[in-house]
Amino acid sequence: MVKELRTIWWSKNNVFIIDQRLLPYRVKYLKIRDHKQMAKAIKDMAIRGAPAIGVAAAMGLALAVVNAKTENKEVLMEKLERAAEIIRSTRPTAVNLFWAIDRILSIARTASSGRELREKVLSEALRMAEEDIEINKKIGENGSRLINDGDKILTHCNAGALATVGYGTALGVIRSAYNQGKKISVYASETRPRLQGARLTAWELVKEGIPVKLITDNMASFLMQRREITKVIVGADRIIAKTGHVINKIGTLTHAISAKYYNIPFIVAAPFSSIDFKHTIDEVVIEERDVREVLYINNVRIAPRGVEAINPAFDITPPDLISYIVTERGIYKPEDLGRVAEETQ
Amino acid sequence: MVKELRTIWWSKNNVFIIDQRLLPYRVKYLKIRDHKQMAKAIKDMAIRGAPAIGVAAAMGLALAVVNAKTENKEVLMEKLERAAEIIRSTRPTAVNLFWAIDRILSIARTASSGRELREKVLSEALRMAEEDIEINKKIGENGSRLINDGDKILTHCNAGALATVGYGTALGVIRSAYNQGKKISVYASETRPRLQGARLTAWELVKEGIPVKLITDNMASFLMQRREITKVIVGADRIIAKTGHVINKIGTLTHAISAKYYNIPFIVAAPFSSIDFKHTIDEVVIEERDVREVLYINNVRIAPRGVEAINPAFDITPPDLISYIVTERGIYKPEDLGRVAEETQ
Repeated sequence: MVKELRTIWWSKNNVFIIDQRLLPYRVKYLKIRDHKQMAKAIKDMAIRGAPAIGVAAAMGLALAVVNAKTENKEVLMEKLERAAEIIRSTRPTAVNLFWAIDRILSIARTASSGRELREKVLSEALRMAEEDIEINKKIGENGSRLINDGDKILTHCNAGALATVGYGTALGVIRSAYNQGKKISVYASETRPRLQGARLTAWELVKEGIPVKLITDNMASFLMQRREITKVIVGADRIIAKTGHVINKIGTLTHAISAKYYNIPFIVAAPFSSIDFKHTIDEVVIEERDVREVLYINNVRIAPRGVEAINPAFDITPPDLISYIVTERGIYKPEDLGRVAEETQ
Repeated sequence: MVKELRTIWWSKNNVFIIDQRLLPYRVKYLKIRDHKQMAKAIKDMAIRGAPAIGVAAAMGLALAVVNAKTENKEVLMEKLERAAEIIRSTRPTAVNLFWAIDRILSIARTASSGRELREKVLSEALRMAEEDIEINKKIGENGSRLINDGDKILTHCNAGALATVGYGTALGVIRSAYNQGKKISVYASETRPRLQGARLTAWELVKEGIPVKLITDNMASFLMQRREITKVIVGADRIIAKTGHVINKIGTLTHAISAKYYNIPFIVAAPFSSIDFKHTIDEVVIEERDVREVLYINNVRIAPRGVEAINPAFDITPPDLISYIVTERGIYKPEDLGRVAEETQ
């Protein structure tokens, strides 16, 4: 159906996604029939990654109106807003979710009939999916200028094709540099608790033949000490424009602190839709997930009964630890984002 | 048989150890009948932790001569030296192993008969086990002076009773402070790949009712950023006296860098037998273990076929990241160890 790996697509008024919880063991597609199923897929992380859940939200909203049994504009708008509420409440941290919902709602409000609303919502959702891949290729192209022949690149979690519609952000930069013929290799940190580095990033890179070694999260600084890592590149779930803080998968901050200590460039790759122009860092909610993700691995308990655990899904990297933020529009210093945001809005 | 938790003991010319690979699921004792079984138990990490493997080595050597069917001193000495070679080759990094073997060999060389050799070796091995607990209690007492009411203490891997004969080094400090009535709580980082923090440290602390929360290794810096961790305390597999470098479980360096970045005291607790007075840091071999420890968790593969991995078991923390080194003789700055070593030798 698709030549390049796609995480999500629309087909005959259903949405299909790769069920990422089953990777790397099985490639299985989930058929999503309505916005409630989409909300559940986002919440349970069958689909994850900030850009991917943005598009998933948009397609979920499209399902809500496309399959509705009415042509009444007001009724459709009401349905859309209720679906938006449900999808909005799935995960609190990645800003793309809210950005995508707002974009779809705005478009819907410009429709003059129920039929037009439906068409506009669907075509906007499809456009966002196509745009996502174009944006990622542009991010890859821009970011590849920061990658040199011989670089050994650490990446954390999965900011690859699977975190987006296709191509990826951080892995997009790696793909782009690799496709330019640069001799690079990758260290993927496994990313406890959910092991997206081991399960997803390693899977994507092995499939494409890009040299990759898996490490536990706690090995990265030792490799930096030995100059076995020369660059770090990660994605972002939300970037605070006002101050340049980056919210990303738990463990990102640790890699950033170690990279700073060893004077290794720390690069964040993300689309403009991950930049939050509204909020300050203190207003961001860091998702706390079920502690069973920490206490169990593959359904086997790793700790004694009676022990407590915590499970913040994201952490906050301050701007002084970030060398570059790569977007589809260019490469920025984190402290420049506030000004850039003003200019481009 | 024993009131406090003991990791290893001698009984009727056999050695018993807790099989730590089965914790926290089962408490099972392994009966060790000869030095080869002991070498295998050390290599496979049925017993682990620098002080514990020192005593295990000594008891392994005692088994080699106590159960030998000869009274000939030269033959016994030869047996002892062959056993020493086998045990010496099990694990390269923790210095206590070599320290213990050398101590037993020296004592054996002072014997004037086969019978005396046997007696001296056994009583020295037993003395080392008793000494270990006394030393740990002294480390605990000394280290507890650095712990304040209200401290939230991060510890990595297991430097507890299970890493020693009993009481523990880093956990000895925590036990001592807790027993003094200080209101403290502990964060145990799980310690991938072998999860000693989740399996062993959490188990010890839960058993004693000391408040403990389990975290993944990559959460520590985020907790430091939020001042949810106020001290870090770890054990050591080897401390280089000349420069103050500390070799300890992989992940220690990462915690130390983060602690430095957030200006949080980083404390190492270890017996004098973990101090290497001979070698420089460049001469230390960092053990590389089977990569299946990274690629599999509880026998379930976590990464796709075809991906490579690395598995260094230890890392090196430089002295500028270490606030204090606590030993049975007192509290030192890492840079003072060279001088202290000269004075006390």
